[in-house]
Order: sequence, then C-alpha cells, then structure tokens
Amino acid sequence: MTGENFIGYTRSAEGSIIFQTVDPSEGVFLPTDFYCANEDEVDRAVKLATDAFDLFSATSLIQRASFLEEVANEIDSLGETLLERYCLESGLDRSRALTERARTLVQLRMMSESLRRGDWLEASIDIVKTPNGTIDLRRVMKGIGPVVVFGASNFPLAYSTAGGDTASALAAGCPVIVKAHPYHAGTNELVAGAVISAAQKTGMPDGVFSSLNDSGFSIGQFLVKHQRVKAVGFTGSYSGGKALFDLAAARKEPIPVFAEMGSLNPIVVLSDVVSDHGERVLDLIAQSVTYGAGQFCTKPGLIFLEGDSASAFGKLLGTKIASSEHSVMLHNGIHSRFHTNRSKLLASSSDAICFSSVPPCTENMGTNTLLVLKAQDFKGNPEFIEEVFGPFSVAVICDTEQEIRDCLMCLKGQLTCSIFTNELKRRVVADMIRMFEERAGRLIFNGVPTGVTVCPSMTHGGPFPATTDVRFTAVGIDAIRRFLRPITYQNFPDEHLPPALRDANTLGIRRRINGQFSVDNL
Amino acid sequence: MTGENFIGYTRSAEGSIIFQTVDPSEGVFLPTDFYCANEDEVDRAVKLATDAFDLFSATSLIQRASFLEEVANEIDSLGETLLERYCLESGLDRSRALTERARTLVQLRMMSESLRRGDWLEASIDIVKTPNGTIDLRRVMKGIGPVVVFGASNFPLAYSTAGGDTASALAAGCPVIVKAHPYHAGTNELVAGAVISAAQKTGMPDGVFSSLNDSGFSIGQFLVKHQRVKAVGFTGSYSGGKALFDLAAARKEPIPVFAEMGSLNPIVVLSDVVSDHGERVLDLIAQSVTYGAGQFCTKPGLIFLEGDSASAFGKLLGTKIASSEHSVMLHNGIHSRFHTNRSKLLASSSDAICFSSVPPCTENMGTNTLLVLKAQDFKGNPEFIEEVFGPFSVAVICDTEQEIRDCLMCLKGQLTCSIFTNELKRRVVADMIRMFEERAGRLIFNGVPTGVTVCPSMTHGGPFPATTDVRFTAVGIDAIRRFLRPITYQNFPDEHLPPALRDANTLGIRRRINGQFSVDNL
Repeated sequence: MTGENFIGYTRSAEGSIIFQTVDPSEGVFLPTDFYCANEDEVDRAVKLATDAFDLFSATSLIQRASFLEEVANEIDSLGETLLERYCLESGLDRSRALTERARTLVQLRMMSESLRRGDWLEASIDIVKTPNGTIDLRRVMKGIGPVVVFGASNFPLAYSTAGGDTASALAAGCPVIVKAHPYHAGTNELVAGAVISAAQKTGMPDGVFSSLNDSGFSIGQFLVKHQRVKAVGFTGSYSGGKALFDLAAARKEPIPVFAEMGSLNPIVVLSDVVSDHGERVLDLIAQSVTYGAGQFCTKPGLIFLEGDSASAFGKLLGTKIASSEHSVMLHNGIHSRFHTNRSKLLASSSDAICFSSVPPCTENMGTNTLLVLKAQDFKGNPEFIEEVFGPFSVAVICDTEQEIRDCLMCLKGQLTCSIFTNELKRRVVADMIRMFEERAGRLIFNGVPTGVTVCPSMTHGGPFPATTDVRFTAVGIDAIRRFLRPITYQNFPDEHLPPALRDANTLGIRRRINGQFSVDNL
Repeated sequence: MTGENFIGYTRSAEGSIIFQTVDPSEGVFLPTDFYCANEDEVDRAVKLATDAFDLFSATSLIQRASFLEEVANEIDSLGETLLERYCLESGLDRSRALTERARTLVQLRMMSESLRRGDWLEASIDIVKTPNGTIDLRRVMKGIGPVVVFGASNFPLAYSTAGGDTASALAAGCPVIVKAHPYHAGTNELVAGAVISAAQKTGMPDGVFSSLNDSGFSIGQFLVKHQRVKAVGFTGSYSGGKALFDLAAARKEPIPVFAEMGSLNPIVVLSDVVSDHGERVLDLIAQSVTYGAGQFCTKPGLIFLEGDSASAFGKLLGTKIASSEHSVMLHNGIHSRFHTNRSKLLASSSDAICFSSVPPCTENMGTNTLLVLKAQDFKGNPEFIEEVFGPFSVAVICDTEQEIRDCLMCLKGQLTCSIFTNELKRRVVADMIRMFEERAGRLIFNGVPTGVTVCPSMTHGGPFPATTDVRFTAVGIDAIRRFLRPITYQNFPDEHLPPALRDANTLGIRRRINGQFSVDNL
C-alpha cells in the first residue's frame, strides 16, 4: 500500500496534504500515509477519462463484459488482505465484510451478464414511409461520458470504488473517476488496484478508471464542477448530496447528479399484528434497527404502532433494541454526530420514553436506542422526520390508523416503506399502500427494509430527498440507465452504424424492429 | 371562444389582466379577450391535479388509451374552426396547419397504442432465493405526479396544449396543467376544450387537465415553483428554458425540467458532394433553412462546406436561400428579435458575404438570409454559435476537413448533426460521425434535419444546451419515460399488487420474469 492516487494506469502523489485512516474500534491511526490529489492531478485524470471515452465506449459488449468480470475476479483474489483492511478501517466485522464482498462481486457479474445480453442498448429500428420517401431511423443507447463516483462511508465495497455506481457507469461505456472515501482509503487503494489490473489485462484504454484521495471536500467539488465530467454518482448524507447537486445544477452546463441521501424507511405495524404476532415482528425490527450499528440507508428510523396494545408493544421493542448486540461505528466523526443527533432528539420531546443500552466501554461504540412517543408529539415536531444515522429509531404510538395516515403525511420522500399486517383491515392496508407509493421507491409487506436484494426488479431510489432523481434506481441492472443517452441514426449506410443497429444482428441482441421485438437480421 | 382558463372541468376568469392574440400577417389584434390566470386559480388547478393523480394513475391501460384516442378525435372534429384559428394566430399557412394537426393526432394515437401494449410499464418480477428465505420482488413504472407543460410558440398543436409532452404525461398517468402560449391562446382554448370534452366523455377525474393563460412569465414561474408540481415540459428559447430549469433546481424539492431549447443543427457538406452533387443538396438545404420562415427547432443554422468549390457552392446556396419563398413570422415579437439578432451577426464579421432577400412589404415577413464566411472568422467569433430563430443560416467555408473538425469542436450540444457525402473519404466520414455522436441526439446521413418523424426510434433531444437532460427524447413513445418512476413491491400479496404485477397476466403485457421476457402468467 502506497497511499498514492491512480491517474489512469499511473500512480501519482503530488499533493502536499497527507492523511491517515483510523481503526475506529481502537481509535488509532493506521500506518499508511494517503496523498490528497491536487487540482492538477484531477485535471489529468479527467483529461485521460475524456480521451479514453471514445475508445472505451466503442469496445464490444464482450470486451467490456470481460473487463467487469475480471474486476470481480481481481477483487476476489485480494482475499484476506482486502477483508482485513476492510474490517480495520470500518470497524465492521468479518461476516459483514464477506457479505459485502459477495454482493459487490454479484453486482459486477450481474452487470457483466446484462451487458452481454444487450437489452440495455434498447436497439430500435423503424423503416417509415413518409410523403418525402422512406426514412430509416435507428436508435441505440450510449454512455453519457466520464462519470465521477463518490465512495460511501458505510459501504466500503458495494457502494464505493467498484460498487454499483462504478459497475453501471463502466458497463455503459463511461470512464469512471472515483473520489475515494477518506475513511477507507486503504480499502479503496486495494480495490482500485484490482480495477486497474483488470483494465490492463483486458486491454482497456488508459484513463478508463482513476481513483483520487482527499480528506476534505475540495477535490470532490472540483471534480463535479469540471466541464468534462458528465454525471455524478453519490451515496451519503443529505447535506453532502444536496451540495453536489447544487454545484452541478449551477454549472454552465448542468449535469445529472444521482445522489442517494438517506431515508427514514418508516414501518407501519397495524393493530392486528401488534396484538397477535408481536414476538417475531419485534425481533425482526429490533435487528433491522441495530444490525451493523444501524448504519444502513435502509435502516428503519420510524416505526408506527397502532392500537390499544401499541404502548406495550413499543416498550417491548425498546427493551429488545436496548438489549441487542452493540457494534462499533464506522468512524469517530460518525460516532460523535450520532450522539449529537441522538441527544437532540432525546431532548426535543419531554414526553418520550427512551429505551437505551449502556454499551461496552469501547471506542466509538454505538448506543442502541428507541424513543417511544405519541403521534401528537411526532406531528408537532419536525425534528423527528430527519434521519439519525446509527442504531436509533423512533416508535410512534398511534391510537387509530387515521393517526398513522396523519403521521405519514408529514414524511418526505423515502427509499422504502414497510407494513406489517394480517390484513384484517384490507381497505386500510390498500389506503396505506397508496400513501407508500407516493413516498417511496420500494414497498415491503410483512418485512423489514434492510437487505437490498441485487436483482433486476429492485428499486433502490425514491422521491426527494431520498434521492435527487426519482426516475432511476441505484441497484440492479437498470442502474445503468442513469448514465445512458439515446442516439438516433437517420438513413445511415450500414457500415457507419454502430454494430447493434446494423442489418445483420451479429450481436444476437433483442431489437425492436418496426415496433416488434426480434432477434432476427433486418 | 370565451378567453377563460380551464381549472379542470370548470371555466374560470378571475384574473384582472386581459390580453388579445394577434394576426401577425396583418398586425391586428383578434377580437377575443383572454384572462390571465391569477395565483389562486393556479393553486386550484394544481390542487385539483394532485387530487386527480391517485384516481387517474389507477385507471386501466384501456381507459387511459381511450381517453387519448378521444382527445385525438375531439381535436379532429374541431375541423375548420381549429385550422382557421391556427392560421390566424400563427401566420402559418393551411398546409402547415394540416401537417401539424396530422402529426398531433398521430402522436396521440401512437402513445395510446403504446399505452395499451404496456411495454412502457417495464413490469419485472424476480423470485430470489436468499439465505433469509425467498424474496419476491416486482417492479413497475408509475407516473411521477402533476406535470406542467408550456406551449411552444412555433408549434401551436404538436408541442403545445395536446402535443407530445401532454400526450406522454397523460399516458404516464400524470395530470397535466398547460401554461398556454400567449401567441395562440385561441388555438389553445379550442384544443383544451377538446381535451376536457374527451376527459369527460371517457370518465376521467376532474383535474386531469387544466389550461391557464398568462401574457407574461409570472404564472409559469409560479407553477414551476409550486410544491405539488412534480415535472415540467418546455419547448422554446434557451433563456426561457434555462430560467425554468434554474427555478426548479432551486426549489426545496428540486424537480426535473425537460426543456428543449433550440439548436444550430449543423450540416457538413464534404468536398465530394460540393463538387459533384451540388444542385439537389443546395435545394434541400435552402428549403430546410427557409420553410415556415425557418421557425423550427431543427432548422439548420450552420452549414460547413469543404474544398476548392466551397466558396462557389456557398454563393449558390446564398442565391437559392435569398430567392426562396418568404413567410410571415409567428409574431411581431419574434420578427423583431429575428431582425435584431440577424443584424448583430451581419455586423459582427466584416469579411462575411450576406445573401439576403427583399421580402414583400407585408407585416412581420421574415428576410431569408445566408451569411457566408471563412472558417477562421467562424472560429474567432462566439456569436456564430448562438441560434438565430428564423430563416437565417451561416455557411462556413472550410479548406480542409480538419478545418471542419476544428469548427465542430467549438459547438455546444445540438439536437441534430447532418453530413452530406459520397463517402469517397470513409475514414473522414467515420471521424465526423464520432464527433456528431458526442454533440447531438440525432445524426442524419445525406439529408436535412427538418422533419422529425414520429416513431419509436426517434430521438428528439441532445446534450445541453439543446436540452436540459440528454437522457430522454421528447418525441416518440419513449418520451413517456420523462414522467415515470420505478416502484418495487417486496413480498406483496397478489391482491395488493398493481394489475401489471399480479401472478395472472390479465393485461397480456410483456413482463421480465426472472430475467426472461414472457407474456405468461407467473
């Protein structure tokens, strides 16, 4: 480990600012010095990405798919080195490291398979008779240009260096410049090295991937403002994502920012479940709140409990959450923000009951917390609709389903909404689902929101402020769409068409020909 | 004709500001008084649209498709009344009125057919085995919410009241609020009446469509800032579109604005055509520049001519353009802006040769103009890369293809790029096409950009500043995507799923089931 940046295939360390990462469980700095990139290095990385774009976007589906597969293989073959560094820098445990690595590999391989299949090209051919003669129109999707991806603090692998954003941008034929998350710069360097090695082995052009370090914000801002950058992927806090969105919108040429900025992921538990099936549901929810120190964008931060037994149910849930296993938080900064935000909410309602653990006396340990309050307290206090990142949730006691509805009306856009019910009140359930549809990208029935299955039908996204563009998903093969644009070729000779649109369907892809799907030649 | 606004099914005229439309060919006001909407009326229209959204987006594919077909029928049955008003308010002739009406009806009917077919729903079902049991994930597309559509000055039918934006938003299940273009408020009232009548006949909820008048900008701005509005469609000038984009980005909850803001639509004529096939190409280009007074977003505003004969070719083109038929421009305001911009460009290069007609002494007649200049003059003057809306174009004389490339490098995003060649220089052609791909949404081979064929393979869009979002098209069935978002249902009981996602494929639509397309039941 050198602590250097990757400007394409070249390592570089010209910046004068140096930082170290931290083992949050011990609170000690790790040995490697990481070099913050300077603006000149950023400029070179972007220039190289721009130059690589033409060649890279012209690589065949098979070439690009092999590249993504090789990235997965290279990451896999980092073996223990990667797992150890991941755990050291994040405080997350080995089983989480294994799960996240597996997910990262699945994402890359699924995207690679989808690339080969070619449906994402949306190839479409129309031969139209018009008064001015026959017009031949052929449309295909193409990458948007160089994409900047910001590493996420809470997913050092699956949403960072070679995570979902990078996989979908590369699949689209867009060179990627990663702004590494400073909390796990070492993990980033290992993974970035794997991507570079895979790119070289599969003959990709220099500049298809770069990785830049910065302990602050200036390099990220400089990247988003760079005129040759064409799109941005970000997973993190509202303040971070919104700041990048604003920067990108204020550019002379505005560019799309796909920022996923957190969510409260409300869960509704209707009275039929509250009174009947308590135990299993309580365990599920308690685990969903506390697992991995609650540091998931899909952690349920609001739980609406209905009916006469709601208070008792809330207390039981509080007890379970308070007595759940504790986990180290990702970083001292996140740990202290958690405690500040937690204290603010604790102080903001005098009538709330707080269930809280006493964590072991270890560095950066999260304090499992459930705040139980009445619907009227919730509705009167806008602080309760802000996310507290960490093992913290709020249970809201509602006497009636109408009270739940009133509370849901206060909510902004979410990634997910969940409902637990035995469906004794079908009409109520249907109404609730309609409210969910307006507010979230994924609705869950009798289940908890944590656990984002990587598959084509997944939507990981939602109305603002959960994300900056409700029209896209960040997980699953359709995540590629964020980085694609359509191009139509009118009356082109066959040889000048992209391969996907030529008369002979040599790629064997599914095309829409005069409105009908077909794998035939024209 | 009453001059009133439509707040859903109710006519309303509460505003205190009144305006009239003008017959530009005579320069006289037309009799009807139109009432500008006030903020209270806007608020009611948006409230009604929000209330209608739930019901409207839950209508069946067949119901919504019938509504769109009925809109087409109602517009058709306005017959002469519509054609006359169209010509009176726009200065466009009867044949253009017929063409544009036909196109408007085709758009509505094509969208209606696509609605029935249901591919746009992108229904996707995955049954995934995980360590935590089987997860059932189903994804479908749904409308984004109330959409505001701004009428375009140059397409009173096809890009206005019931034009492409409205057709795609309604197809998506989004209620539409039209901000009528003040130049053709009468045409708007007729078409809006047709939409309302179709909505009532097919049992659509009140609020599914509203139409608001304003002679200025305040009502449009108020609409874009309204928190219940979820997306905006706009076709018009850069300054207008960018202002709305900025307003929408600065909202507390930013919303997507799909603004199409014009384009220079460069044409490259390589030396092999310049020397060989002059006449036919010259006629095509001259007509493309001057037809309909050049008031198309796809009018070619820049023509690059290559080789020894380029100067002579340019002069011939100038003569043809200058001697083409003159047309009345849409409005006095547009006419005077045209002359201001034209004069500015004429004055900005002393070495340019101007070919220009002397139009008949009639109100608001456009002056057909071609400015011929050298590549070095073009490159040195950024004024030449701004659109002049009207029958005006610039021919750039390039000695070599490298000079063309240097000139293309100066261009911003475009809707279209065209090339005329006999392909004597295949390598050059391939290079040029690559440059086009970066700069435009539609590339045309041996043809002119005017004439946007309405079909699934069309891309009417392009990189900024041609549009505000290169990822979408404004024409063709995929225009619906601008107003759709994905929603995923996890482990839902069949009865609570939207019809498109239930086990039984009662809609008979194509669905992706575990990655494979199928029309079967699950």
